[in-house]
Formats: sequence, structure tokens, C-alpha cells
Amino acid sequence: MSGLLLTTIEMIKPLDKGAMAEARSRQDMLTKPQGSLGRLEELSIKLAGIQGKAIPQIRHKAVVTMAGDHGVVAEGVGNWPQEVTAQMVHNFLSGGAGINVLARQAGARVVVVDMGVAAELKASPGLISRKVAPGTQNMCLGPSMTPEQAVTSIESGIEVVAAELAKGLDIVGTGDMGIGNTTASSAICAAMMGKPVAEVTGRGTGISDEQLAHKIEVVKRALEVNQPDRQKPLEVLRKVGGFEIGGLVGVMLAAAAYRIPVVIDGFISGAAALIATALAPRLRDFLIAAHVSAEAGHRLLLQHLGLKPLLDLDMRLGEGTGAALGIFLAEAAAKILAEMSTFGEAGVSDKAKEGG
Amino acid sequence: MSGLLLTTIEMIKPLDKGAMAEARSRQDMLTKPQGSLGRLEELSIKLAGIQGKAIPQIRHKAVVTMAGDHGVVAEGVGNWPQEVTAQMVHNFLSGGAGINVLARQAGARVVVVDMGVAAELKASPGLISRKVAPGTQNMCLGPSMTPEQAVTSIESGIEVVAAELAKGLDIVGTGDMGIGNTTASSAICAAMMGKPVAEVTGRGTGISDEQLAHKIEVVKRALEVNQPDRQKPLEVLRKVGGFEIGGLVGVMLAAAAYRIPVVIDGFISGAAALIATALAPRLRDFLIAAHVSAEAGHRLLLQHLGLKPLLDLDMRLGEGTGAALGIFLAEAAAKILAEMSTFGEAGVSDKAKEGG
Repeated sequence: MSGLLLTTIEMIKPLDKGAMAEARSRQDMLTKPQGSLGRLEELSIKLAGIQGKAIPQIRHKAVVTMAGDHGVVAEGVGNWPQEVTAQMVHNFLSGGAGINVLARQAGARVVVVDMGVAAELKASPGLISRKVAPGTQNMCLGPSMTPEQAVTSIESGIEVVAAELAKGLDIVGTGDMGIGNTTASSAICAAMMGKPVAEVTGRGTGISDEQLAHKIEVVKRALEVNQPDRQKPLEVLRKVGGFEIGGLVGVMLAAAAYRIPVVIDGFISGAAALIATALAPRLRDFLIAAHVSAEAGHRLLLQHLGLKPLLDLDMRLGEGTGAALGIFLAEAAAKILAEMSTFGEAGVSDKAKEGG
Repeated sequence: MSGLLLTTIEMIKPLDKGAMAEARSRQDMLTKPQGSLGRLEELSIKLAGIQGKAIPQIRHKAVVTMAGDHGVVAEGVGNWPQEVTAQMVHNFLSGGAGINVLARQAGARVVVVDMGVAAELKASPGLISRKVAPGTQNMCLGPSMTPEQAVTSIESGIEVVAAELAKGLDIVGTGDMGIGNTTASSAICAAMMGKPVAEVTGRGTGISDEQLAHKIEVVKRALEVNQPDRQKPLEVLRKVGGFEIGGLVGVMLAAAAYRIPVVIDGFISGAAALIATALAPRLRDFLIAAHVSAEAGHRLLLQHLGLKPLLDLDMRLGEGTGAALGIFLAEAAAKILAEMSTFGEAGVSDKAKEGG
């Protein structure tokens, strides 16, 4: 492993138990029955542990949406042409995509990164270009990328987060765009979780039964050709992953290194999380699962990660749309701790009557 | 039934099918795979039908939090003293309660209404006083209120909404405060749904097993003494309801009459919805269930109403806290329709390849 990646992994420390205990005890003094805000309370305590502050603060918010293309589209796995990846990047930059709307609503900026789109993208002030290559190789014929490209994709993600820190970053959401990337993610899931391909392969943008059967066959072929070893997460990324997935691995690792909570989106972010948590098991505590998507396999994936999603709204768009909603909930949880009055401050009786 | 109540019920018209069809067709032109925003898409179409606009608008937002006391606390059903109702009203007015924090986060104003708190509340510019009486009677000894009081409570809720319209109101959330009001709500649920008391009686603010057994016995006694007839929803409200519950019935009816979506909170709002939809079956289409609370019976109640909750976060605080989160999701859904680019506008290919 190269320098930056290794250093970043080593920077990830356990949650701050002291801050969590203080947050827990403050929750119990706020003017409400103990525990009555349910998972928002748990989330506030997790945020305290991540940020190392008894009262966590969520002011600067970003969704990092990474785009990349996939050589496996040559196998005809989806029903959208590859040029849609580039077209959607332009849509992100002009503010008209789903992620733009939902991030604005959550008060989060969208950080758009070209990790490996198979087209020359027009330079734009809003576009971060970290193109590793114009799309991966077809994983049915051999590895998706070289070992160097795998490390470069992750380190690019780390550098993107480092650059965002200067603008202020209290929470980060992960998002993706890439025609063919549910296919790569299914291959990662099957490899990392040891599950049958059919259990972790879904309809992506909305394919037919026949197309789904073909997609499952393609994923199986990619695994047979590459034989990825799940003990070697970098090898799994290299053989059946994608550049935007590698980039998201880097985003997650860097965020945890800098004690920034990471709100993960759907299936593709989940696949990145499988690799990232295998590289750095402590990362898991820094992840917040925004939602469980409609994509087959995502529920299993979250169970494997030991994460309980906040939302279940049958969403399957990607881009970070679920993460944007999750960021709103995380901010709400933090504000409860910061802004609610205690029993003492509000002059509200906090003694339950004995015996009812 | 009296004039205002009857007129309001008669004003409730079916959803606007034309606006819904236009919203559906716009959703399918937006730059995303069809249906990929799941329940946010469904919600946007429901909002279109309610507001009668192909692109619904959620700008002016309010949570109406109604407070009232309950004579049944004399039976020792809870573990908090009755004065907490008044204390919490003051907490709402000074902005330190859970609902204040979450409503601020959602950009919604909190409308605090004294429907029947058992204390003289200090006048405050933020407090709407519609006190029907200082608390209901003990429903274990007879009806909670007189027939006139039941109608007055509902009509007060109608008038509160009418007054809010002048300030701008595109969506309304419902909230409650009242020591003892889960007991009244359980009695309403059992009466209106014909379910065993034990299935619809929960731990409220967090009572012990022993206290729960006592609470169930109290609800059973109230039903035996009063024999409410579920064919007569006003009678159910009068016999085992509360003033804040009646007020919320009025809020829901008036909102639907004025074609304003209603985001209902937890168990107490749900009990009000049981009565309100029995009075005006068309109201159901105007209701959005924010969340399923941790309170026993709430899930059954939502099933009975045919509503699927947006959130499941183990919350059980009331006040409208769940509704505030639901308002955020409704606004997100509306903004998707209003702000996302179409395929044509964004220059994104919208043709799926034939045969994949």
C-alpha cells in the first residue's frame, strides 16, 4: 500500500467515548421523556463520538458525487447508453439533477468529481477532474483496472476530502454516477460478502427479467475470470470495481481520518463501504446509512456492515440523493442536542411520580 | 352538527386527478430513471392532487401544536405530573422544546394553542388561547366533555387554521401536548377500530409493566362506563377524547377544506385522524403520515387509516416532532417536481437502448 492511503487508514481512531457519554447525559436532561426522540438521539450520540464534541456541530455540509464509466457496459448490462454518464455530470454542474435539488434543500454543497468518465468533459469551475482513465476495462475479459489505478482512485478521493476541509466540512455524503456501476457493485458485493450473485444483483435503472438474468450471468463471468480474493479488498476493487467506487472508498477513509461523519447513499456507496471497511475496520463507526434502496442486495449489504438505515423510501437513483436526506436528519439530531432546553433551564418538572 | 363544522366537512372535495396526471407525467420526464425517487415521487403526486397544482408549492409551513389536560390523570395513568402540560406550553413559547428545534430546521412556524390546559396560562403573543375548559372530566366516571364542548373544540381547530391562512399556509403539521393524552387516544383507538384495549395501549412517556397493566384497566373502565358508539365519531370524542384531540380534528378538516396537505404526527394525531376521517371520509386523501411512532397501537392505527408512514425512527415525543420531519420530506418531494430538469432541458438521452 502506498503512503497516503496507509497514512490515512492509520489516522482513523476510535470514537470518542467521553464525548458520547456527555452527549448521552445531556440528552437525558433535555425537556422530553428519556429516549423519546428514538434514533435521532442515538444519531446525535454517534455524531458526538465521531466529531469528539459533546455537542456536535453540523454547519458545513457537502455531498461528494463521483462519476466514472465502466467497460462492462460492452456486455449490454443496462438499458441506458454510456454517454448518459457525461450528460448527467453536466446536469449536476448546471444544478438540474435530483442531487442538486435535494442537496440544496438540505443546505449541502454538491462536489462533482470526474473519476473516470469515458468522455472529454468541458472544464467548469464546479468540476473537479481526477480522471484516472476514460472508463474501466471490461471486467468480463480481465481486471477492471491496474493495481496503480486502484490506489490512485482511492487517493484521489482522499485528496478531494482534504481540499474540501479548507471550505469547512462537518459532514459528508457520498454519491455516484456511472452507467454500469450497479453491475460492478454487485460483483464487489458478491466477492466481499460471499453471497450468491443472484442475491446481490438488482434491476439498476429498471431492467426487465430477461435483462436481469443476463446481468447476473455477466457478474458471474466477471467473478470467474478474475477470482477476486475477499481477504484483499484492494484486489477486489481493482478486478471488478470502478474509478468512482475507488474514489468513494477514499472519501470515506479520509472523512473518518479527519473525524467527519460520512452519510452513505445507496448500493454503489455501500459497495465502496464494503471495501473501505475491509481496509479500515474502524471506519464502520463513522458511517451513517442514509437509506435502504430498492436495489436488490442493498439490505443485505447494510446488514453485513452492521448499519441500520434511517430511511426506507424505495429510492434507487444514486447521485447521493438518499445521503442528502440523511444529512438533514443528522443535522436535526445534532440541533436537538445543541438547541433544546434542559428541564432546569425551562422550569419543567423532571421527576416522574413514584408508582404512577 | 353545527354550522361551521358541517360547512367545513362539505367543503372537502376529492383530489384533483388532472393535476395528479400532469405531475405524474412531469416526473417521468425528469432526468432520472422513472420511479427512481420512489416514495418522494408518489408524495409529490399526492401533493399535486391536494393543492390542485401540477407543480405543488411548499413555501409557508406550520406545525399546529395543541395542548390540553385530561381528567383521567386522577386515575394515576402516567408518571408525569399534570403541571408539565402548562410548563411545556411555556417551553414551546420560549423556543426550547423538541418541536421548536425540528420545526426551525424544517423552516416551519410553530402555532401553539391552549385548547384546555388545567392552569391559567400567562398571555403571550405566541399563544393562541382557545381554552374550552381547564382540562376534561375523568372519563372513568363519565363523559370527558359535554356535546357542546366537543363541537367547540373541533370548531376552534377550524378557526385556528382559518386564521393561519392569512399568514400563508401551504402545508400543516399536527402536534399535541397533554399529560394523559395517550390514555385518551388509546380509548379512541379501541372504540373507533374495535380492537382489544391491550393492543392499542402503550407506554406513553415510558411507564413500567405494572403501570401499563393499570393503564389498560383504566382504558377498559372508561369504555365500559361510556359505551362509545364508533358509528358516532363525535360521541367518541365527547366520551373519551380530549380538547387538544378535538382541536386537531378541526385542524385536519379545515386544512382539507382549504386543500392544504396535513402531515400527521404520532399516536395522538392518529387518534384525531380516526375521528376526523370518520366524520369526513374524503379527508383521508389529504393526510400524510410522517412516521410510525414507538407507541403501541400506532402501526395498527395507520394501517386502519390506510396510510404508510414516511419515517420509522422509534420516536414517541409528540408535539409535532415527527410531523416537522415529514414536512421537510414533503417539501423535498415538491421541489423535485419544481426544480429538476427534464431530459430535454438538460440534453440527457432519455431513450433506453432496445434489448439492453
